[in-house]
Amino acid sequence: MRRYTMAAIQLHSGADVQENLQAISRFVREAADRGAQAAALPECSAYLGLEMGTHAEAIPGGPTCQFLSQLARETGLWLHCGSFYEQNPQDPSRPYNCAVVLRPDGSLAGKYHKLHPFDVFVPGSGQMRESGQICPGDRIVTVDGGELGKWGLSICYDLRFGELYRLLALEGAQVLFVPANFTLNTGRDHWEVLLRARAIENGCYVVAPGQFGPGPEFPAFGRSMIVDPWGNVLAQAPDRPGVILAQIDLDYVDEVRQKVGTLSNRREDLYRLERV
Amino acid sequence: MRRYTMAAIQLHSGADVQENLQAISRFVREAADRGAQAAALPECSAYLGLEMGTHAEAIPGGPTCQFLSQLARETGLWLHCGSFYEQNPQDPSRPYNCAVVLRPDGSLAGKYHKLHPFDVFVPGSGQMRESGQICPGDRIVTVDGGELGKWGLSICYDLRFGELYRLLALEGAQVLFVPANFTLNTGRDHWEVLLRARAIENGCYVVAPGQFGPGPEFPAFGRSMIVDPWGNVLAQAPDRPGVILAQIDLDYVDEVRQKVGTLSNRREDLYRLERV
Repeated sequence: MRRYTMAAIQLHSGADVQENLQAISRFVREAADRGAQAAALPECSAYLGLEMGTHAEAIPGGPTCQFLSQLARETGLWLHCGSFYEQNPQDPSRPYNCAVVLRPDGSLAGKYHKLHPFDVFVPGSGQMRESGQICPGDRIVTVDGGELGKWGLSICYDLRFGELYRLLALEGAQVLFVPANFTLNTGRDHWEVLLRARAIENGCYVVAPGQFGPGPEFPAFGRSMIVDPWGNVLAQAPDRPGVILAQIDLDYVDEVRQKVGTLSNRREDLYRLERV
Repeated sequence: MRRYTMAAIQLHSGADVQENLQAISRFVREAADRGAQAAALPECSAYLGLEMGTHAEAIPGGPTCQFLSQLARETGLWLHCGSFYEQNPQDPSRPYNCAVVLRPDGSLAGKYHKLHPFDVFVPGSGQMRESGQICPGDRIVTVDGGELGKWGLSICYDLRFGELYRLLALEGAQVLFVPANFTLNTGRDHWEVLLRARAIENGCYVVAPGQFGPGPEFPAFGRSMIVDPWGNVLAQAPDRPGVILAQIDLDYVDEVRQKVGTLSNRREDLYRLERV
């Protein structure tokens, strides 16, 4: 399947997990009804609140994961679950912010722990120190999406660090995922431009489902997007929860890369980028 | 001087060197009259044509360089000369596409040979193979701009390769230069988004003077820009040759980097980017 329909789902998640899961269920079923073969959710999809530790679970196996596996099975979709919290036995008070990808049979295709801690000062919202609440991951992850291609995983603030996306592309990723809970103030100025840049400079599709609306720490920017490898925004969400759709064409990834020399004209004799 | 005024000069250079130098002289003097302490020209500033080999010279010492040194001295400006062609003793038929920075006393502060050859297929313009006519460089270059800060050099198509700009920023660059002769077709979709991304992801000013108008191989996109470290476009040229001005504030570079963790939150324990 060189062409397929991808859904990005914009949410306004809160601290009530059951409510969030019901919204997710409704929108994923809508995506399936509208012809999607895959659907992607935002960061903090199942829980958006300040009690991360008490909402962490085993992945796979935990209750959120079981619910979403069942949803993938029932709809027959590849399901990128955005992120929720995975238990961290080494430091229970600091779980992982964990992206989860499920196959249409409900099995776990891959998971990824957010690498870059959101330790920043946000104009209008003050100091954030995610690394105090979340344990940063230590692994760069691509997922074999079967006939849907190779997927590269990341979460939100990772977007600022081009090294990650370049490595994902060099390791074969054709579709890059950026589930997010971007702040309104940084989103206004940085969201679209960085998503489009990652698409253009790597010749990849970028699927970026975001949270939208008031939140416990800051208002979320929304404007979920699907961007093609030329950098065109194929679909953008309006300012409310919902589903956007766009066609992924894996042949177009190859075509754009060949035209622009995206990866082939790198000067590996002068600079080296590699996993440590 | 933590704050100063930078000029970016948009040109429509052709194959007549004397005509180009007269235009450059006029615009650089205009920049000085309007209060600039530094001015930057586009790629192929002194010659934009197909006979690169016969227009190559010694740098410093060649006639174009001497003319521009005299201009820097007379105006008292730091002058980023965009690029022109430097002789290549190893392969005279393939000169270097060379960026040149002159001090206000006319002396050479630094030079840089374009690293990434423009070997691409441009929609609407066909196949380009710059590497057949130009010898790619082999050195990443920052320039000590004295009280004007540290400058990072690049040329046009380099813009697609984020590794270069990240290395420049890690080596201390506060202002990144992207003199260009961007094609109309790629410029429309990639110019602004990539310039702004380089600024945001590195917390740097980006100064990008471009050629504008019909050319020997393709129409040039223009839209010369100066972008601040937050990614705001401070100045943009209209569709004709001319001077745009913006204020560079080196303290703002530090402020933005601290706020957003631009360089400090990189995961050097997981990926390594370095010069070979």
